[in-house]
Formats: sequence, C-alpha cells, structure tokens
Amino acid sequence: MNFHQYNYTKPFQLENGQILENLTIAYHTAGTLNPEKNNIIWVCHALTANSDVFDWWAGLFGENELFNPKDHFIICANVIGSNYGTTNPLSTNPETNSPYYRDFPTITIKDMSNAHQLLADHLGISTIHLLIGGSLGGQQALEFTLLNQVKVDNLVLLATNAIHSPWGIAFNESQRLAIEADSTFNDKTENGGRNGLIAARTIAMLSYRTYIIYEQKQKDEDSVYNDFKASSYQKYQGEKLANRFNAHSYWTLSKAMDSQNLARNRESLEKSLSQISSNTLVIGISSDILFPPSEQKFIANHIPNAKFIEIDSIFGHDGFLVELQELNTILEHLV
Amino acid sequence: MNFHQYNYTKPFQLENGQILENLTIAYHTAGTLNPEKNNIIWVCHALTANSDVFDWWAGLFGENELFNPKDHFIICANVIGSNYGTTNPLSTNPETNSPYYRDFPTITIKDMSNAHQLLADHLGISTIHLLIGGSLGGQQALEFTLLNQVKVDNLVLLATNAIHSPWGIAFNESQRLAIEADSTFNDKTENGGRNGLIAARTIAMLSYRTYIIYEQKQKDEDSVYNDFKASSYQKYQGEKLANRFNAHSYWTLSKAMDSQNLARNRESLEKSLSQISSNTLVIGISSDILFPPSEQKFIANHIPNAKFIEIDSIFGHDGFLVELQELNTILEHLV
Repeated sequence: MNFHQYNYTKPFQLENGQILENLTIAYHTAGTLNPEKNNIIWVCHALTANSDVFDWWAGLFGENELFNPKDHFIICANVIGSNYGTTNPLSTNPETNSPYYRDFPTITIKDMSNAHQLLADHLGISTIHLLIGGSLGGQQALEFTLLNQVKVDNLVLLATNAIHSPWGIAFNESQRLAIEADSTFNDKTENGGRNGLIAARTIAMLSYRTYIIYEQKQKDEDSVYNDFKASSYQKYQGEKLANRFNAHSYWTLSKAMDSQNLARNRESLEKSLSQISSNTLVIGISSDILFPPSEQKFIANHIPNAKFIEIDSIFGHDGFLVELQELNTILEHLV
Repeated sequence: MNFHQYNYTKPFQLENGQILENLTIAYHTAGTLNPEKNNIIWVCHALTANSDVFDWWAGLFGENELFNPKDHFIICANVIGSNYGTTNPLSTNPETNSPYYRDFPTITIKDMSNAHQLLADHLGISTIHLLIGGSLGGQQALEFTLLNQVKVDNLVLLATNAIHSPWGIAFNESQRLAIEADSTFNDKTENGGRNGLIAARTIAMLSYRTYIIYEQKQKDEDSVYNDFKASSYQKYQGEKLANRFNAHSYWTLSKAMDSQNLARNRESLEKSLSQISSNTLVIGISSDILFPPSEQKFIANHIPNAKFIEIDSIFGHDGFLVELQELNTILEHLV
C-alpha cells in the first residue's frame, strides 16, 4: 500500500469544544478508482493498528486476496491520537512548540469520523462501495455513516457496538489505571509510562481472548509453581506492543473507545441506527467477551437493511482478525 | 468471633525449599467443641479476606445463621502472606530485623495448608465435620484434605479448582505487572506499590464480576463522553482495597493462587482427587469466568463421593459470596 499524509491547515473542532490548530491525517491507499467510481473500499482500523491494512488484515486484504488493488481502490486512514502518522499526543503542540503528552485533548469516535470525512472531501469521495471496520474501527464506521456526507452502499461492522458498555469502559479504565500507576507517564518523554503500557496491554489481551485459547496454547507441560508459560506470554505480549506503541496514544485511544455512544446529541440509539440506509452486515464472534454478540444483534435489529451473522469461534474478540476463512466466505458477495 | 494468634517457634519448611524461621498464625474461632468433638467447621478464606468469617460471609456464618456458634465450633485461619495477623511480607525478617517486603519467599497453596495442619495439631483437632472454602479457600481445602492428617467428614468446595488455569494465571500476572509498573513497589514501605495495587484490584474485579452486572449497576443515565460511572466504580473498588491491604501481600497471595496444582509431586490430578474420601459437594457459579464451572465439574467427577451443583447466577465468581439464599438451601443438610 502507499503511504500518504494530508495536512488540514484549518482549525479542527473537537466534540469536547477544544480545537486542534492543524491536523495531519496519515493514510494508506492501494489500487485506483475506476471510471464508474464504485470500487472504493474504506477500512477503519482498530485500537493499536495502523493504516496499512495489507499488513494487519492479510488474508482478507492484499494483492491476491478477496479485497485487492486490481479490483478495488482501498483506503485506510490512521485515527487521531494514534502514533502511526496522524496527529497524536507525541505531535508538536503549536501552543508550546513541544509534544502534547498528557495535554493532548480528549478525542471521541465522532472526532475520528469527522477526520475521515475531511479526508474523503480532500480525495473527492462521495460514494463508498464498502465501508468496513471491527472493534474501534466498527465504532468509527457507524459514526462515519451517520455523518451522512458520503453515501455508503455497503456497511460491514465486526465485533463492535453502538454504545460502549460499562464492562468495556471498566476494562479500559483498569488499563489506564495501570498506565497511571507508572509515574514515568508524567515524564515528558516518548517512553513515559512504558511499564504501565505493558501491564495495560496484558489486561487487554484477556479481553481479546478466551479461557479456552489460553488453556490450549499457554498450558505448562511440567508441574511448576513459578515461571508459568501464561505469565511469560503476558509479558511478551505487553513488551511487543510497548516496542511499537506509546502509553500516551494508548491512553487517548482507549478513552475514544469509551466515548462511543450513537445517542449522544441525538434522540436515541435506536433512532440513530434506523437512519442508516446502507446494505449492512453485522458480524459477531460467539466467544467475544469484550464486544459480545448481543451488541451486534442490537445494531442489526435497528438498521433497516441489516443482517446479523455470528461466527462460531473460540478466539474471542480477536476472532474478527483471525477467522479469515469464515470472513472470506461471508464477504465474497461484496466484491 | 474471637481473635487468636499461634506462634509456631520452629522453622517452617516451605515447598520451594526456603524456611520461615518462625511462623505466626492468626485465627478466629466461635463456639465450643462439643463432647463428641464432631461439630467443627473449618473455613478457608479467599484472596483478600481475613479469618473473621462472620464479617465476610455473614448470611451463612453468624450468631443466628445456618453455621452458628451455638451449634458449631467454627475456625478460620488467616493464610501465610496475608496482612491480617499471619506472617506476611510486612512481618519482620529475623535475618535483617526489618520487614521482608519483596524478599518474602514464594508461598504455595500447599504451604498454606501445612500451616492449617500446624494449627489443627496445636488445637488437638483430628476430625473436621465440615471443611469449606471458595476460590483460593477451596484450593486450600483440597490440599488440606489431601494432607490426610485430619479426617474431613464433609468437604464443600466453591468456585475453585484442582489446578489453576493459564487464563487465571494470566489474570494474576497482569495484576502483578500493574503493581510492578508502580516503581514505589520497590520502596521499603508499607504503602509501596499502592497505585499499582489499585489498578490490580480493578483488574481482579473484572474477573470476579460479569458484563451483565456492570451493565445493570454501572450504566450512565446521561450521554457523557468522559467521567463514566464504570470508571469511577473501578477507582472506588481499587482504593477501597488499597485502604485495607498492601501490594506485597497481594502480590504474594496471587502467586500462591497460581501455584495450585494437585498433581505437583503426585501422580496426576485425577489420582489425587480419587484419594479424597470425604462426602464432597462442589459448587460452581454459572457465570464465573475466572473459575468456570468446568473446573468444579472436573473435581466432582474424580472425587468418589462428590456431587456437583451449579448455581445459576449473573454475579460471576463473586457469586459464591453473594448467592447466600441459594447457599443456605444447598448446605442446610450439613448442619
């Protein structure tokens, strides 16, 4: 995919009233717009992913995959707050000429979606053939559709919700408390809060996976009373993330996930969903404890042209990234 | 209940080969031993509880409850590592004349059970009418029974397991990583690691409760995008624990929970369980994600005189402390 950055030089108004003086939006594209302008696939990425969808959704997106650059013009934009090229807490605060760090404003899913709209305007996009996203990406896809400025022909929402649950907020709060327990989070450095971030990611892993997956893959073969495989796995996953992410972006994005509520400044969740006219497919993972299928059923029940499909999987929330064979089957009619 | 402390002045050998030069065991009792010596109820407490079972299991234990001091001689001992009177990381290390803190040795469930046996010997107890424990308490009750030095007539195990799962270990590891992310955990003070402990407890709450309980009790009534009720609840629960516990004891006890494995230095889990001759009742909570009912079914399947009962509850792991009406019904034949 090709990496681009779009610099929006006007003030960008956030939902909380604050203003980002300027906004850089990083995005990847692959393929070209066809003459009929009906081959655009817009992907919204999840919490710690980047805009290179061929990298993190290989098996579904790629040169020779179901969604490929020969047939489609594929776009994915990095969200505000993320450290993959879009304005984020490590960007320079024009007021102080040094990075924002903890002064970065609270970002909502709606702010992210407004930024997607800016990019769509910049690229002259008025119709999207397929808008697709899972988890935090699905939250954006819903808001982006509700902005009602681009026409979304097909909407695919995976393992996501219309309002973030108290349970999900509590999981995110525990992660933020772990980051805040690391006093280096207050240091004005890129690595501030690294140990807290490691702990936070391990908490997130528990919400992304399941008892049965840990049982199958992290069980010790010998009778030990210390240094368990599951402990090493947690540390490994935490460090792996900390080597490619930072505590400030993580903190900001987890707050954005919590902000998801299609009813805020609207009549109700049901009414908001009922205004979506896209041909919609809502996909849930049977064992997802973070965004349980009941949340996707709710969405599908209130969008007029929606269908709900549950993937039977032991992978939990991560199933939307892992169950590729199933997803290829479910989505092939959308090519 | 009456508080006592028993000082065992000989060296106490731990499972990892280390020695505690002396051991203080705190315990509570209520009631008196009857002439037939067949009215002893021995309770094993869970992770952060104390030995005052009338305090934390009111509704089942108390002056006028199913298990009461008029009919029974009730005993509960505080486990090694806990800060409610038994030797723990804040106790004085005789080698240095200052508290152990992070030098406190690794404690296992078997060590806790060996300490229970010392107390039973001290009190001249050779037969227990009812041995009961949930979670970490159930883990001890199993090991205590397998020591085979006291005769356990009736064994009641709630929301517990014969081997701690990789999933359970991962949950505990995330909590320890949160504590370790707080660099004050290395300070040699009672409050060292307090912020980490707060985060750790909030993680534990997620494993003790369920999506539906958070949905019912922590849902915001207004459309907010910040300061969610679920966030406040997490912080409140974390601080509440940190005001009565310390990071060192918590760290030690979470490691002990991970150590549960009835097969260690024995032939197998199945063989170990098959050697228990007590009349056994194993109780699971339908929505427990930390110690799921499959773990209690496994125990009941391998103890010869065991029966499994599942309590249908939305409270998750905490159900064993909360579903008091159900427990009274299930246990009344044991009085």
